[in-house]
Amino acid sequence: MAFFELNALSVILGGSFAARVFFIEMDKLQLDDAAHAYRYPVLVLLHDEGGACMDLQRTPAERLAAEHGIFILAPDVQHTLGANMEYGPQYETFISTELLNICRRIFPITEGPANTWIGGIGTGGYGAVKTALHHTDVFTKAFSIDGTLDMYAIIEQAKSGKDTGIGLQEAQLSAIFGDLARFSGGENDLYALANKPATGKFFFVCEEAYSRKEESESLAKKLGVVAEIIALPAGADCFSQQKSLPEAVRWACV
Amino acid sequence: MAFFELNALSVILGGSFAARVFFIEMDKLQLDDAAHAYRYPVLVLLHDEGGACMDLQRTPAERLAAEHGIFILAPDVQHTLGANMEYGPQYETFISTELLNICRRIFPITEGPANTWIGGIGTGGYGAVKTALHHTDVFTKAFSIDGTLDMYAIIEQAKSGKDTGIGLQEAQLSAIFGDLARFSGGENDLYALANKPATGKFFFVCEEAYSRKEESESLAKKLGVVAEIIALPAGADCFSQQKSLPEAVRWACV
Amino acid sequence: MAFFELNALSVILGGSFAARVFFIEMDKLQLDDAAHAYRYPVLVLLHDEGGACMDLQRTPAERLAAEHGIFILAPDVQHTLGANMEYGPQYETFISTELLNICRRIFPITEGPANTWIGGIGTGGYGAVKTALHHTDVFTKAFSIDGTLDMYAIIEQAKSGKDTGIGLQEAQLSAIFGDLARFSGGENDLYALANKPATGKFFFVCEEAYSRKEESESLAKKLGVVAEIIALPAGADCFSQQKSLPEAVRWACV
Amino acid sequence: MAFFELNALSVILGGSFAARVFFIEMDKLQLDDAAHAYRYPVLVLLHDEGGACMDLQRTPAERLAAEHGIFILAPDVQHTLGANMEYGPQYETFISTELLNICRRIFPITEGPANTWIGGIGTGGYGAVKTALHHTDVFTKAFSIDGTLDMYAIIEQAKSGKDTGIGLQEAQLSAIFGDLARFSGGENDLYALANKPATGKFFFVCEEAYSRKEESESLAKKLGVVAEIIALPAGADCFSQQKSLPEAVRWACV
Repeated sequence: MAFFELNALSVILGGSFAARVFFIEMDKLQLDDAAHAYRYPVLVLLHDEGGACMDLQRTPAERLAAEHGIFILAPDVQHTLGANMEYGPQYETFISTELLNICRRIFPITEGPANTWIGGIGTGGYGAVKTALHHTDVFTKAFSIDGTLDMYAIIEQAKSGKDTGIGLQEAQLSAIFGDLARFSGGENDLYALANKPATGKFFFVCEEAYSRKEESESLAKKLGVVAEIIALPAGADCFSQQKSLPEAVRWACV
Repeated sequence: MAFFELNALSVILGGSFAARVFFIEMDKLQLDDAAHAYRYPVLVLLHDEGGACMDLQRTPAERLAAEHGIFILAPDVQHTLGANMEYGPQYETFISTELLNICRRIFPITEGPANTWIGGIGTGGYGAVKTALHHTDVFTKAFSIDGTLDMYAIIEQAKSGKDTGIGLQEAQLSAIFGDLARFSGGENDLYALANKPATGKFFFVCEEAYSRKEESESLAKKLGVVAEIIALPAGADCFSQQKSLPEAVRWACV
Repeated sequence: MAFFELNALSVILGGSFAARVFFIEMDKLQLDDAAHAYRYPVLVLLHDEGGACMDLQRTPAERLAAEHGIFILAPDVQHTLGANMEYGPQYETFISTELLNICRRIFPITEGPANTWIGGIGTGGYGAVKTALHHTDVFTKAFSIDGTLDMYAIIEQAKSGKDTGIGLQEAQLSAIFGDLARFSGGENDLYALANKPATGKFFFVCEEAYSRKEESESLAKKLGVVAEIIALPAGADCFSQQKSLPEAVRWACV
Repeated sequence: MAFFELNALSVILGGSFAARVFFIEMDKLQLDDAAHAYRYPVLVLLHDEGGACMDLQRTPAERLAAEHGIFILAPDVQHTLGANMEYGPQYETFISTELLNICRRIFPITEGPANTWIGGIGTGGYGAVKTALHHTDVFTKAFSIDGTLDMYAIIEQAKSGKDTGIGLQEAQLSAIFGDLARFSGGENDLYALANKPATGKFFFVCEEAYSRKEESESLAKKLGVVAEIIALPAGADCFSQQKSLPEAVRWACV
């Protein structure tokens, strides 16, 4: 098993960024591929709000990259929900263009969308599904693990001064989404996006006891035939995606 | 020489943060201090805009912590200029309260302001001097290395669509400072703050060829007797504060 | 949850070393303890041969440190089995003296043996139990997870040219233990050490399907009333001590 | 500027290893090279005894990789002097085969010896020059910065119980080199190797005040026309190769 801590400058973000890169066991790289022609599938994996890419070292990501022969790119998205902030960095653009382009120069990863996937945990699931719906030419599969998906509900909670459960308050949500009164039905509203026929494939997984499980269920229903949803027994994930991430990666790799 | 990479949760920031902590050679810790009564001086050190705390590993920070017997705390402040953002995290509060309080629980560092200092490089110099002027009960000394200090000038450049030289554009400066029309003379304007008599001590160091050298000179002049300024030959710093940081730390430790 | 990557110099090792330090949520540190009098329990945790301390980030160590209010020190022991090598660094001495002494200067951790514990995974279990048996004045509890404990059997395999299952060959085992003909019954032979009455407490945990499970069973039997052993269902640990480490830390903290 | 922390498994070392990888600014990668045909030069850079690859972050390595458009691979060689240990890991083989082969699979670096170079600091200079002399088919250029080169003298000091100045004592030197009585004139004795005509190119740089400067001078003299040597003013390097490493990389890139 192997991973990088990548620290580099992004033109789009206007500064340095950090990412974890998990990849196949080095002695299992296609060592007989003298021409270096083989290009590995790549999965962009987004962490939850309040966390950082290093949280993903607790998950089986490193082992799954090795087992399935894929690269997993996990960038820090800080408090941006992976969005193009109204007042702040343009993470969605970074993720769907510069991050992949840079990594394609450095690593032997696939160029086309067929084997380019995106997934996330918690609010990372929101960012992953939204980015895939916006960039169908880049990503063909997206998954959400214990997703925090209904941002409209969260905005309503924040406006009425309630705890949103994800740490962000009204001012921060405004910085990300701009005028909150215009959120519903807009480009950041997953449920509005899901009304249009989607071309990629989507996978949702939640633990049975997960409090936002319905958000995944209703979004999967809206997406229709392109979406699949499964549930795991409560506690199965040991707080670190021990069962859900293997299921999601297996789904992507099929 | 020794350092930590610290990764932890902040209540004030509403999420995880990263910091480098440089400290005295471990075999030189006061090993005869059986009661662990000795408390080391502490310097908070802020990186430049577009960078990260790991940039400080290029500087002599680790060696200086060892030589002078101090702890250096270098937090990531991302694209916030170390400020309490209007739309975003409250870094100035984090730096002047939670970060120090947490580290005082974990490390044997001083409790009082006499040996609690703050410094920074580039825009970090701006954040350091401003935080010290705002929090005279916390920090008694502040320094700026090749400081980017005149934010009003930068805001004017941004408004007229010019390159600010620090990567930030108008929208990002608004997210940090709020209404830019009200910046001048406010709590984030160093030159306005310097009009009031300051109680701490301040140190400015620039390379001779540094393009913003005048900003340090005029601010030092405004601060008057509490401020000291020195210049280094062009190139002396080898792009990594090889001469300026030793000068600044020596100044603080006297 | 919080952790450090510690990089520092050791006098005993004659060079730099790396360690992960996991500790209690920072906002849950005894913030009402103005005198900083409280000293947290400390667990030294040893990784398996062929691995490194960063492997422990895959385990629940960070969460367990937070939940139980303890510090977990996980040093890199490289290819030494945590031993005082015949030809090489003195890791057992480093672990049982310098590492703890240094950390007691830096962190608010306990001074005495009552709350100073050691544990390990695979060959780390061997190192942990041996170190505790050798240093009863330092450690009062030790645990082994899926332990690789019978070094005599491994040496016999290595001598006959068989795969030892732990990567080390005869030359490397000689570098660690010296003359292999004199291993049996010596200070590095756990089963010989267990013949003498032990004063600490010992805990062994294995998955049902673990191939070396008998090694734990026979050692626990030899240790007698001071030892406890439990088995977990096959697969319960998800390759990353998801169930065994919580059991072991809970046992230590009682 | 950009770098990786690489953590992976080595078959030759029988376990995990760590390395820093410094490389060209990501936005300056040959972005117009759609076929990814360009292969960057590569420099293997060895740290000094008692240190680790992260020490190289204090040097201008990251900036030099960016400026010259090269990859710099800096592996941890621990206490091995980069040698194939008699009792321990085979670092010279690892460095000259597996490390490069793995990195050629992952990164767009050159395949052939023309642009594959090796250098080091202190004892890293010893390892670099020796590895280049042994593997002329792999490396065509080698440099040594403030080299600790005369291992025979160090062995004599160790045998007579004197401080070797590099931390290693007789037992450790035996673990590396085997029977010390047979060191002189053998495969690990640089001055013996230099008696044979060398095919690569060699560069030595020392500060004027460096105590082992004569070792570089006499080795350069033995190597003859293939070797170049320069001296820097005392203190020029600011303890972190600020002048010597740029000189050495410039020499290699010409």
